[in-house]
Amino acid sequence: MVDVGNKTVTRRHAVAESFVHFPPAAAAALHAEGLRSRKGPVLDTALIAGTQAVKRCADLIPFCHPLPIERIRFEFQFLTPEQLHITCEVAAEARTGVEMEALTGASVAALTVYDMCKALDLGLSIGPTRVVEKSGGKRDFKSDQAASAS
Amino acid sequence: MVDVGNKTVTRRHAVAESFVHFPPAAAAALHAEGLRSRKGPVLDTALIAGTQAVKRCADLIPFCHPLPIERIRFEFQFLTPEQLHITCEVAAEARTGVEMEALTGASVAALTVYDMCKALDLGLSIGPTRVVEKSGGKRDFKSDQAASAS
Amino acid sequence: MVDVGNKTVTRRHAVAESFVHFPPAAAAALHAEGLRSRKGPVLDTALIAGTQAVKRCADLIPFCHPLPIERIRFEFQFLTPEQLHITCEVAAEARTGVEMEALTGASVAALTVYDMCKALDLGLSIGPTRVVEKSGGKRDFKSDQAASAS
Amino acid sequence: MVDVGNKTVTRRHAVAESFVHFPPAAAAALHAEGLRSRKGPVLDTALIAGTQAVKRCADLIPFCHPLPIERIRFEFQFLTPEQLHITCEVAAEARTGVEMEALTGASVAALTVYDMCKALDLGLSIGPTRVVEKSGGKRDFKSDQAASAS
Amino acid sequence: MVDVGNKTVTRRHAVAESFVHFPPAAAAALHAEGLRSRKGPVLDTALIAGTQAVKRCADLIPFCHPLPIERIRFEFQFLTPEQLHITCEVAAEARTGVEMEALTGASVAALTVYDMCKALDLGLSIGPTRVVEKSGGKRDFKSDQAASAS
Amino acid sequence: MVDVGNKTVTRRHAVAESFVHFPPAAAAALHAEGLRSRKGPVLDTALIAGTQAVKRCADLIPFCHPLPIERIRFEFQFLTPEQLHITCEVAAEARTGVEMEALTGASVAALTVYDMCKALDLGLSIGPTRVVEKSGGKRDFKSDQAASAS
Repeated sequence: MVDVGNKTVTRRHAVAESFVHFPPAAAAALHAEGLRSRKGPVLDTALIAGTQAVKRCADLIPFCHPLPIERIRFEFQFLTPEQLHITCEVAAEARTGVEMEALTGASVAALTVYDMCKALDLGLSIGPTRVVEKSGGKRDFKSDQAASAS
Repeated sequence: MVDVGNKTVTRRHAVAESFVHFPPAAAAALHAEGLRSRKGPVLDTALIAGTQAVKRCADLIPFCHPLPIERIRFEFQFLTPEQLHITCEVAAEARTGVEMEALTGASVAALTVYDMCKALDLGLSIGPTRVVEKSGGKRDFKSDQAASAS
Repeated sequence: MVDVGNKTVTRRHAVAESFVHFPPAAAAALHAEGLRSRKGPVLDTALIAGTQAVKRCADLIPFCHPLPIERIRFEFQFLTPEQLHITCEVAAEARTGVEMEALTGASVAALTVYDMCKALDLGLSIGPTRVVEKSGGKRDFKSDQAASAS
Repeated sequence: MVDVGNKTVTRRHAVAESFVHFPPAAAAALHAEGLRSRKGPVLDTALIAGTQAVKRCADLIPFCHPLPIERIRFEFQFLTPEQLHITCEVAAEARTGVEMEALTGASVAALTVYDMCKALDLGLSIGPTRVVEKSGGKRDFKSDQAASAS
Repeated sequence: MVDVGNKTVTRRHAVAESFVHFPPAAAAALHAEGLRSRKGPVLDTALIAGTQAVKRCADLIPFCHPLPIERIRFEFQFLTPEQLHITCEVAAEARTGVEMEALTGASVAALTVYDMCKALDLGLSIGPTRVVEKSGGKRDFKSDQAASAS
Repeated sequence: MVDVGNKTVTRRHAVAESFVHFPPAAAAALHAEGLRSRKGPVLDTALIAGTQAVKRCADLIPFCHPLPIERIRFEFQFLTPEQLHITCEVAAEARTGVEMEALTGASVAALTVYDMCKALDLGLSIGPTRVVEKSGGKRDFKSDQAASAS
């Protein structure tokens, strides 16, 4: 694991995004049910699972450092009835960036949406999942492709 | 969590896939280094992290059942120098399907590839992530979109 | 850890209960907000945390066996505006009982309710937490004290 | 998860308590055995499980922050032969309080006592579990009900 | 992860052993204190940590299968005042052997003894750690070197 | 858990070592295969498992504090074809030492080597495992026995 001992503690911030795509009939059924499946509220469940995944990032990704996460914020928005946009924002005072935490959170939130809705249709798909922006380290990053990088 | 107590124990099988997309310069650098980054071998690391994630699926996805996973198999193939295709195959004797395990494995393998390569470029992106096929339950499923569902 | 190798695999079933007691002003505020705190929906969050805790029981309680949990079901009911009743029901085909899983689920659900509502008042309290009923082993058990053992 | 990035790092301290109630015959048997069950020493085991649970609090309770716990201290005292009083004290230099860690520790210690003693009687019960005192944040808290808030 | 789906479910059994070596003064101090350090009872704590580690083996060792562990049994014996012998016995009905579980249990028990006693002397050492015997699979194994393979 | 709240935050550093001993035929087979077993690359896998174990040390060893690990570095060297030497170096800015983290990393790396190679011979053995050096606390430590303490 890369030694970050000589890096400076700064406020690290990152945003990642992912998407879940629903086949039309599944989308219609989900919206008709007020975004609840028989397992429970889809987006609330995804938010919780994503939050837990952010905190477990160093346990999932072999060379990630354990970081004292201070902020996790999700947004869920249907861009169309068939396309759910997920953003995960993470911040910490740390010696290294939190983009893996944000990506892991967005990914697990998307996987949870899949799990909550798969009884409707197994043909849901996830992605693209990517970093929208990152700041606090040596160089800032801002995606020129991300839907939420306005 | 859905009661699966009255379902039959059968051999459950699922395959999921994901993709990692590399910007051209990052792809060139990665191939020039024999698919090693300074953190280590990219695909071996992704395989291990993905394997561990399959086993932790029920811990990550709130309403997944803990299952006695018997087989986890990954394949990594560059379809082009800039596009890595990942498949994750999972099998278990169980009362419920293993498609979430396969999706979680493919996702965490892709996230790990990102982590191993992000020093090259933060603009890598992941997806689509989807179920390729599933069997052993009430109804089989085969994607008509997946790259590996030939 | 007790050897259960010579016990019979049967359908094991257990129900546990817990309670959360709210000071009057906190109860009034929570109900006025439709059981949402600023952190999110109180009962949905407790259900998810409790479900995850059931699955992690053997990781939390030193001498519990890892069991293939097949069913987890929570019920939340306000007996009075100031008294929330939680039941957690667990089932598995296993060689040993699931009462610790049910107790752990009820306890962590109650702790999560506390966490979601503590901004209203730190004086919430939890309990009694106890086994309501248990079946599938050598001897069945039914509490003569539990609120839900009717 | 609430952003605590703008809160001050201070020495955070909290004490929680719980109780385990034993039916008379179970209490007598446990004391006759020197507080050992056939699984091992009851209170030592509860202390260890509770300590581990304090450290896993952010993994169990969805919106708890991961904190660098510096101190965990348990006390176990039989107030009567049938009533065990457990206190869990936690401290950390952190931006947010440690009352959930203390509550989680006291709860899991109590659950472990149950598990160690349930062969004696399944009718043990746990609670009330509550915060005794908390300091280091914006406002201190001291319970007017807790047994250990003297 | 190797596919064990076509292997037979049998009663799998394994025993592993490890040793902890104490410098003379540390050994004398530990025995004078009745095998307690200021952190608590050394062997009880090691037994609990080792038990938990057996159950987490598949989470620690990348290609181990999750197994329904049914029996975990430790023995601790001072062969001399300066040499502690640890054995860990594991059993499960499973399609693959439990020797990694037994080795992991013995190792983490030994590490815990180190942690409990390191204030006495950092010069304690651990090992050899090895499989004593294994049965239930295609071929049985019995070490010709292990101290406990009599 | 010992209160470290009044200790100073300093750069803590520790190195531990372990050994894996291979019977001659197993050693020959492993080297002939370029240090790959049918499960994958032996040393890369051990490095990853060891790294993850360092980060999970406080979850495995009951009274270890959770620490913000900043550096983990492994070295693997065959001293003879039959003797693999593993060192694990850990560093963190913390109030307490990281020797348990280093020992845990070296131990789990050795266990993983065993798992990767056990199909060759179950007679591999592990150890001695010990602390090579430690610095950053009240008193530095340097082993007079360790192979890597030059």
